[in-house]
Amino acid sequence: MKLTRAHAVHRTTKRPESSTVILPMLRGARRFALISLLVPIACTNSAWAQPLELRNTLMPEPSSLSVQPGSFQIDASMTVRFTGTHDEVLEQATTRAITQLEDLTGVELSKDFAASAGAATFEIKVDHPAETVQSLDEDESYTLVVRPGYIGLNAPTDLGAMHGMQTLLQLVQSQPGGYVLPAVTISDTPRFHWRGLMIDCGRHFQPIPVILRTLDGMEAVKLNVFHWHLTEDQGFRVESLRFPQLQKMGSDGLFYTQAQVREVVAYAHARGIRVVPEFDMPGHTTSWFVGYPDLASGPGPYTVQRRFGIHDAAIDPTRESTYKFLDGFLGEMAGLFPDAYMHIGGDESNGKQWMANPQIRAFMHAQNINDTAGLQVYFNQRLLKILTKYHKHMVGWDEILTPGLPTDIVVQSWRGVDSLSRGASAGYQGILSAPYYLDAMKSTADHYLADPIPANTCLTPDQQKLILGGEVCMWGEQISPQTIDSRMWPRTAAIAERFWSPATVRDVPDMYRRLQVMSLRLDALGLQQISGPQRMLRQLTGNTSSPEFRTLTSVLEPVGLGARYHLQHTDQLTPLDGLVDTVAPDPPSRHQLDQAVQEFLADAPQHERSRDCLEQQFRSWVQTAPALGLLMRRSPRLTDYAPLAEQLAVLGGIGTQAIDYIRVPSDMPAGWQKAALAQVTAMEKEKNLVRFTVLAPLEQLIQATGGNSTE
Amino acid sequence: MKLTRAHAVHRTTKRPESSTVILPMLRGARRFALISLLVPIACTNSAWAQPLELRNTLMPEPSSLSVQPGSFQIDASMTVRFTGTHDEVLEQATTRAITQLEDLTGVELSKDFAASAGAATFEIKVDHPAETVQSLDEDESYTLVVRPGYIGLNAPTDLGAMHGMQTLLQLVQSQPGGYVLPAVTISDTPRFHWRGLMIDCGRHFQPIPVILRTLDGMEAVKLNVFHWHLTEDQGFRVESLRFPQLQKMGSDGLFYTQAQVREVVAYAHARGIRVVPEFDMPGHTTSWFVGYPDLASGPGPYTVQRRFGIHDAAIDPTRESTYKFLDGFLGEMAGLFPDAYMHIGGDESNGKQWMANPQIRAFMHAQNINDTAGLQVYFNQRLLKILTKYHKHMVGWDEILTPGLPTDIVVQSWRGVDSLSRGASAGYQGILSAPYYLDAMKSTADHYLADPIPANTCLTPDQQKLILGGEVCMWGEQISPQTIDSRMWPRTAAIAERFWSPATVRDVPDMYRRLQVMSLRLDALGLQQISGPQRMLRQLTGNTSSPEFRTLTSVLEPVGLGARYHLQHTDQLTPLDGLVDTVAPDPPSRHQLDQAVQEFLADAPQHERSRDCLEQQFRSWVQTAPALGLLMRRSPRLTDYAPLAEQLAVLGGIGTQAIDYIRVPSDMPAGWQKAALAQVTAMEKEKNLVRFTVLAPLEQLIQATGGNSTE
Repeated sequence: MKLTRAHAVHRTTKRPESSTVILPMLRGARRFALISLLVPIACTNSAWAQPLELRNTLMPEPSSLSVQPGSFQIDASMTVRFTGTHDEVLEQATTRAITQLEDLTGVELSKDFAASAGAATFEIKVDHPAETVQSLDEDESYTLVVRPGYIGLNAPTDLGAMHGMQTLLQLVQSQPGGYVLPAVTISDTPRFHWRGLMIDCGRHFQPIPVILRTLDGMEAVKLNVFHWHLTEDQGFRVESLRFPQLQKMGSDGLFYTQAQVREVVAYAHARGIRVVPEFDMPGHTTSWFVGYPDLASGPGPYTVQRRFGIHDAAIDPTRESTYKFLDGFLGEMAGLFPDAYMHIGGDESNGKQWMANPQIRAFMHAQNINDTAGLQVYFNQRLLKILTKYHKHMVGWDEILTPGLPTDIVVQSWRGVDSLSRGASAGYQGILSAPYYLDAMKSTADHYLADPIPANTCLTPDQQKLILGGEVCMWGEQISPQTIDSRMWPRTAAIAERFWSPATVRDVPDMYRRLQVMSLRLDALGLQQISGPQRMLRQLTGNTSSPEFRTLTSVLEPVGLGARYHLQHTDQLTPLDGLVDTVAPDPPSRHQLDQAVQEFLADAPQHERSRDCLEQQFRSWVQTAPALGLLMRRSPRLTDYAPLAEQLAVLGGIGTQAIDYIRVPSDMPAGWQKAALAQVTAMEKEKNLVRFTVLAPLEQLIQATGGNSTE
Repeated sequence: MKLTRAHAVHRTTKRPESSTVILPMLRGARRFALISLLVPIACTNSAWAQPLELRNTLMPEPSSLSVQPGSFQIDASMTVRFTGTHDEVLEQATTRAITQLEDLTGVELSKDFAASAGAATFEIKVDHPAETVQSLDEDESYTLVVRPGYIGLNAPTDLGAMHGMQTLLQLVQSQPGGYVLPAVTISDTPRFHWRGLMIDCGRHFQPIPVILRTLDGMEAVKLNVFHWHLTEDQGFRVESLRFPQLQKMGSDGLFYTQAQVREVVAYAHARGIRVVPEFDMPGHTTSWFVGYPDLASGPGPYTVQRRFGIHDAAIDPTRESTYKFLDGFLGEMAGLFPDAYMHIGGDESNGKQWMANPQIRAFMHAQNINDTAGLQVYFNQRLLKILTKYHKHMVGWDEILTPGLPTDIVVQSWRGVDSLSRGASAGYQGILSAPYYLDAMKSTADHYLADPIPANTCLTPDQQKLILGGEVCMWGEQISPQTIDSRMWPRTAAIAERFWSPATVRDVPDMYRRLQVMSLRLDALGLQQISGPQRMLRQLTGNTSSPEFRTLTSVLEPVGLGARYHLQHTDQLTPLDGLVDTVAPDPPSRHQLDQAVQEFLADAPQHERSRDCLEQQFRSWVQTAPALGLLMRRSPRLTDYAPLAEQLAVLGGIGTQAIDYIRVPSDMPAGWQKAALAQVTAMEKEKNLVRFTVLAPLEQLIQATGGNSTE
């Protein structure tokens, strides 16, 4: 019997036994003696909800944390004092944090930072003011001390103070009568300097509100690099005043004005986030050529490319006019984006247009360039000169890692940790991205456990220092402003922990527990990973309340980019508003059903509770199905999914039976186990681009009937 | 027995008997022979949901509509053709409409407007291109013809075409197998030229994303003036390059840059919306004086005012330096805001600072100005000269309507229709606002039935032409970016119908029916009147799913501005994140329970269904209450509301009993009716700033037991 995918899912979510050994201090700190603010409350709300418990819900986990008795009561007597340096950046960050604290607690707090000390003091001591342009190696550490009547936040820089404030907000706990911060001592510093999130705004444009709320989410999870993928075959998304036909002809009117770019850069800076723009060259450049066909290696005219994938169109690297243009364009962009790094892409250039052009071939011959890879090295060397002239460091994808380039470039690896390690061995700085591609629709656990420097790395300690960090990548083929949040969040919060926290923080169930709380915090910031899918469901069903559909969609997830592309042949113009866009990758159901099944099978003290929750869940699937099927058949956009309703009922029936047969094995009819397994495994195949999230634990339940007698 | 408020509610929602006489054509058109896309589907979802019916769901209602047999099938064969003039504005509007059509139907449509005619054609014929600056009296009419295989949209201007596209989107209906537009002929033109929405961004700043999505909503309901209240005692919200201390010292850092203003103006223009800025003078100006104390009539220094209400601070109208400043400032703003109208406020200037200043009193004496009203006339006359110099018409609140000003100013009436009519009698143009103050938290029906030119008007037809229209007002004392949408929408959609549709369109139940559909359309645009309260509930309860709280909050609404101000003493710094901010004014429950009770009492054919729905609803209140009370007592921010849970159970019990006793009067114990009424009326008092929406129909049910024997 084959259960490959399902087994893989299960493997990644089981508890690593070693975590209590690895992290003794954190282990000890994991339970605060206080009531958590945001943990879901009771099984009455959902079969999955956890009981009210007293727990650490920080994400990312700090490097060191200890809990003391007592707490700081949040009330109107709290005053903020700056006892070190403080500039506008810090004051604004503090105001925002205080406002968020008010929103969390409903308590009106003083924002008059000049006030004399009150009964309770929040003392902020920063050694140095913020740098005008945030740098890669700026100190981001902080210490946070909370005790009754006193909060002390110390940091060498504004950045550390900003991170400390986010930690502080995450410490808020409710208890009868009010809100408190538990007494703690936290000393925290990030593991990696480069903790990024890339958004591809080329293939689908993302309006400014999406970018701004994303930056809010990044701040909350201590990410510090927004990598803005601005140009693609499918769209040129930034305004150039020197070469206005770039955006005028290459964007369908969907681009960021320079004023908007400045706003984004300032907004990010105020949140401790650098903005690294990417202008992908020499491939992925069709949109440039619509307005400037002379830049291309092949004859025009060009139109904006609608199809995805690797295209032949490429910049002509042999003409001096190309470099004159790029000097002008990149010089303009260098002024617009203050960060010291600029990303030139460099990926997936197939060289076809180059080889088809006799003049380019002649140039290669004359210059003793053997192949198109060599020609790209030549191009990159010329680009490097331009970037250096404008005081920018070069960043590029794997392909730029070639002998001809100096080691002060930064290589972003989409190929994986081995490629990254080879670069580091050769002295190149690197950023890992391959395991953090959100469009693969993988589980949070999969992303979470992938480490830029795995425990078994062959790199020397000095080579390890060349691994600057990692970047989450949100590619744009199949996302819209309506769906991007549910693809990015909350999974990105867990990856952010990978980049910030000690490598030893790898407890998957604990990550999922904290992630659920973190998701509600992100929701409070205006991110739409919860509200967006609910809105799309309202639109699909034409109803403000669709409990039947919420039952179904909570156990569905979209297939990954590749599968969808293969099955649906999407291009830039495909509407992204179907059920596949409505359901979210790795919804809580996957981990929660798994956990309930593990508890039930372990015959633990929670046995009774987990059985009740499982039975309640399975029953809801069975009960929902008839109405669901009826509703689906009435809506043209859902008719094709109607079989899912019947499948849901089947799954619920099988689950109920499995529980019965585990309790009373003698009740199980002959052949039931085999037949049930066959039914469930048959559902592993995607159905109209979506698939069930709950099959693996169900299969485990079935396996457990009759004492694993089937194999 | 007193039931004043409850009776008032009932009165406004009963069906006007005369509508079939007044609107024969519309009446006839009200039922399409097709399945509506968005009407809630079944009583299984909610006790209120309507049965699937075949209805007209347009809002605002067009001036004339007729339905023919047949329909236009929406599929990939549809091509768009421009057969008249077409400019970029029209192309972009068309692209947006086509994209929305794709989102509604899931069908990928051609956006290649140069394509040759397909099997199905959408022909757009516009006579004249858009004006660079939209003018007040630009022709907004259109005709829309839909028949099998053909859509024809004709309009004299882009504006009409844009309105027609919104109507087209609202015509989309689903039927088994796909989406269609019913065959119709619509000829439509607005009743009023000035159909506005004012947002006060002074008292609480509203970020750009809020403004942009509001403009999307305005476009959908054919509003055409965004009145941007930019300056207040509590904040100066627009960047001045000439006088930068205005925003630097008067805004807490919360202001719109000039680049953002230009973006908003362009975004509005692309949607057929004018942007009229307001700089409120001479009162409501404290924030100006923080940076420029010499402008004030009293001695400084000044700080940003946190308290609301009428303050003494006022511009000094006697110094020439004041007019030099205002000439510079208004000249700068005249360049930033292209609209021909500029609003100078003029309201609530109490004259106290003027009378306290000996120099000002001396000036009045020297100029023969008798009182502060006279001094304000002098000030307005000087302002008028400046505005005229910059080619702007003056708009102001009621107070500017004084003999000293010419009749080409526009008076916006916050005092009411009588004041407006007096202005028109004196030859002044006017806009009605008083009945459209959203912060009063009145029912949609209340707003909807208020007419800028009531049927009993004394104005002559020529005088009536001076009534330019109306403006919805969203004042900023008690709104945040998180709550503003649920205060504005969907009520504003109904008021927009008042401004657009014939005066005879006044069927309240039909308005509520269409409003529910409209609310889902607004939700699709990203407006947050549904998702925002859901998000706040998640944050208040710390839970992703809170069915108990949704049951409760669906029958609660906030008290009005005045009551809250009086009870809570809010100022600008008060957190706006309590239960009062979470619940929405006039939720569907009010009208829906009323309707169900009317149906039940009418003993109509729906009797059985309405009884089931009522019983189901009442039962859910009773069943929810225990868990709800428990949850509330566990959360510090909800503890005080716990009595509401018990009250909900009481209401549910009384409702159930009332139904029983209406069916079997002999079962009713002696004294029950009186006791029940007393219990319900006792609940009319607000509880922690919220109140029940369902008391009036419940009282009616109780009254109906035992044949009205209590009075």
